[in-house]
Amino acid sequence: MVHTTQCCILMGCLCLFYPWSQVCEWREPEELAALLDLELRENGEPQHQLLQRIRDVAKYSVKTNHPRFFNQLFAGVDYHALTGRFLTEALNTSQYTYEVAPVFVLMEDEVLSKLRSLVGWAEGDGIFCPGGTMSNMYAMNVARYRAFPEVKLKGMWSLPRLAVFTSQQSHYSVMKAAAFQGIGTENVFKVKVDDRGCMIPEDLGETIELAKSQGAVPFFVHATSGTTVQGAFDPLEPIADICDRQGLWMHVDAAWGGSVLFSKEHKHLMRGVERADSVTWNPHKMMLTGLQCSAILLKDTTHLLKHCHSADAKYLFQQDKFYDTSLDTGDKSIQCGRKVDCLKLWLMWKAVGSKGLEERVDRAFTHTRYKHRHSQTYCFCLSVIKERMMKQGTMMLGYQPQGGRVNFFRMIVISPQLSHQDMTFCLNEIERLGNDL
Amino acid sequence: MVHTTQCCILMGCLCLFYPWSQVCEWREPEELAALLDLELRENGEPQHQLLQRIRDVAKYSVKTNHPRFFNQLFAGVDYHALTGRFLTEALNTSQYTYEVAPVFVLMEDEVLSKLRSLVGWAEGDGIFCPGGTMSNMYAMNVARYRAFPEVKLKGMWSLPRLAVFTSQQSHYSVMKAAAFQGIGTENVFKVKVDDRGCMIPEDLGETIELAKSQGAVPFFVHATSGTTVQGAFDPLEPIADICDRQGLWMHVDAAWGGSVLFSKEHKHLMRGVERADSVTWNPHKMMLTGLQCSAILLKDTTHLLKHCHSADAKYLFQQDKFYDTSLDTGDKSIQCGRKVDCLKLWLMWKAVGSKGLEERVDRAFTHTRYKHRHSQTYCFCLSVIKERMMKQGTMMLGYQPQGGRVNFFRMIVISPQLSHQDMTFCLNEIERLGNDL
Repeated sequence: MVHTTQCCILMGCLCLFYPWSQVCEWREPEELAALLDLELRENGEPQHQLLQRIRDVAKYSVKTNHPRFFNQLFAGVDYHALTGRFLTEALNTSQYTYEVAPVFVLMEDEVLSKLRSLVGWAEGDGIFCPGGTMSNMYAMNVARYRAFPEVKLKGMWSLPRLAVFTSQQSHYSVMKAAAFQGIGTENVFKVKVDDRGCMIPEDLGETIELAKSQGAVPFFVHATSGTTVQGAFDPLEPIADICDRQGLWMHVDAAWGGSVLFSKEHKHLMRGVERADSVTWNPHKMMLTGLQCSAILLKDTTHLLKHCHSADAKYLFQQDKFYDTSLDTGDKSIQCGRKVDCLKLWLMWKAVGSKGLEERVDRAFTHTRYKHRHSQTYCFCLSVIKERMMKQGTMMLGYQPQGGRVNFFRMIVISPQLSHQDMTFCLNEIERLGNDL
Repeated sequence: MVHTTQCCILMGCLCLFYPWSQVCEWREPEELAALLDLELRENGEPQHQLLQRIRDVAKYSVKTNHPRFFNQLFAGVDYHALTGRFLTEALNTSQYTYEVAPVFVLMEDEVLSKLRSLVGWAEGDGIFCPGGTMSNMYAMNVARYRAFPEVKLKGMWSLPRLAVFTSQQSHYSVMKAAAFQGIGTENVFKVKVDDRGCMIPEDLGETIELAKSQGAVPFFVHATSGTTVQGAFDPLEPIADICDRQGLWMHVDAAWGGSVLFSKEHKHLMRGVERADSVTWNPHKMMLTGLQCSAILLKDTTHLLKHCHSADAKYLFQQDKFYDTSLDTGDKSIQCGRKVDCLKLWLMWKAVGSKGLEERVDRAFTHTRYKHRHSQTYCFCLSVIKERMMKQGTMMLGYQPQGGRVNFFRMIVISPQLSHQDMTFCLNEIERLGNDL
């Protein structure tokens, strides 16, 4: 048993250091299914076969750690964070009570407090969630609860029709949240953006009036710091002015952009964020902690998060416990069991310091500038170039249409392992893949 | 860098094999915070200090793998599953598209299909979620959408007041779901249970009539297979009869109990489950895959899950892709990025086979029988015994009040590494800890 175990674990680790030359080894779904022999059977398999399975899983998976993986808003690997992730898996606990996660309850508190201080809040609340969409949902739910606490007990029937505001280029999670929480997607009002993709505050004001004239009650403005496609930062100061005036909850979805707060040079992009009521921030994106690592941060100091989500389960949150039960975070969460997501970020932060994280953000911006100086527009047959790219496995980039414009490539620059050579390679490679089109 | 990395990773793995004698090494929160030196600073730390931090995190964390950890509905470790978890962390991808997770999209499909076949469905749908509460929320949301598809667009204002039904002893996630989704907790009607904690079907029928008489529209019955406290299995056949007659969505929360479907001897506990519309099943509980591993399974074959949750994000789910885009699962999910949760279960299943998993379930039931034969009722001063237990670190058990009764210990038996000696130890230890009370 120990022999198999050690082999398997070693193999899992080794996969990471294997010098993969390709970003992906493309196979059609039918072929891949056959190669992997996925079927689950009555009997177990011998050790050599399991080891081969592990090799196959690694071989045919996309190497998101590869310097030429630009396909997603995550990429690269930080080995300290990875160690934290391995340790999290080995210790296997749930974040809900101090008694079962003493180290991680205190650690989550420290990490959240540090993230909040970067936002500009000396106190507040927060929790790690399974991804940015969930963090955004928390914000919308807590905002609704602040405006209409009776919603928890009575549901939406006791409330007027509500209205949510966000830019045309915000992440689709706003729509998912509105649908899931019973608000309805047609009650999400889209505010116009300028050429750079930033919300136009004057249009926010007008859209709020429009919603009111239709009998809806505004309660939530969802601004974005770092939009998914253009990387735009909404102007937070004028948005905060409007929210103040109208008494609306201001949420900043900084899932992607939040990490600029580490950088003295770039944090001006989020000027005014301290005036928000809540912020979503995903260190699994620009900070390389690895999925999943997303925080919802709140300015609130009145335990709104707990009042909004508590269910007071007596088997977990006994009130006659022998320690301070305010350490039991389970009632802040909509989840019951909750994976530990703080250790990977904490360990990486300890290893490189705030300074190291700042350098990382600054480096990503330098790469982006290089790309903008050297890139051309490839606006035709992108799907063909993408297909060739995947099948040859030389790199991975996403593409998408933008508003009325044609498709364009969306190259996301995150990994600190990235060199200028990789960037040049990437631009030349698009040219090579499409040179006969 | 490589040196540090390898040391750290090795250390992370070694923590697991270290012969921890205690289940936990209790420290008061203030003392623990000081010991761990949690503060995050400007500068990074040298390697020897990071290694010490890793040792400390492991030392002061609860050893949920310890055979005398009975505190939660998870415990123990399966080393194949753990290998799958390490590999998942090393490969770091998101489950949303075939292009970025080719292996895991196909693998999730196979695992879900196999779980569905154990439920008794030849086809259907499903997805892995971050925990059982989220899986239960999916069920409630899809059920609401089936009954009133306009809710997605228009929100709850277009709907009559809805009613949900569940037993008095169901998990608190039903309440959390109703609050989060805008249904309201007072619209969750609690159905009476018998002495064993099982829902009384006659009372379900009466409660439905009661809700209707109050003007609410029933749409969702949430039955439980394996309640959190008593481990009760609701009688699914008569509940299904009622749901059929009334045209209600029948959900079975088998987060804890689902694994009995592996066992020829015990699957009768869930007789009738194939008549349900959806099932929540958490292999991270009885199956030892480790957190998080929870599936929501649906009988539906009309893509309800996708219709209900889709937001058609063009940057991820391009329709001119060069492969079959029905493989892109992202629009089934309310999350955007979604952690890979299938590999750990798949690898363990490959390693021990369905037979191995069956043996595991049967063994857990044998231990439970032993416990029932030998246990006495300790109904006084449980919080004192619990405190002593934690501070001495000899074992971990939860306790809780049940209905009008006094506190009792809740010993959860899962780990296959457990011996009869451990069980005997546990019963004697309660006696020892409380002998002067």
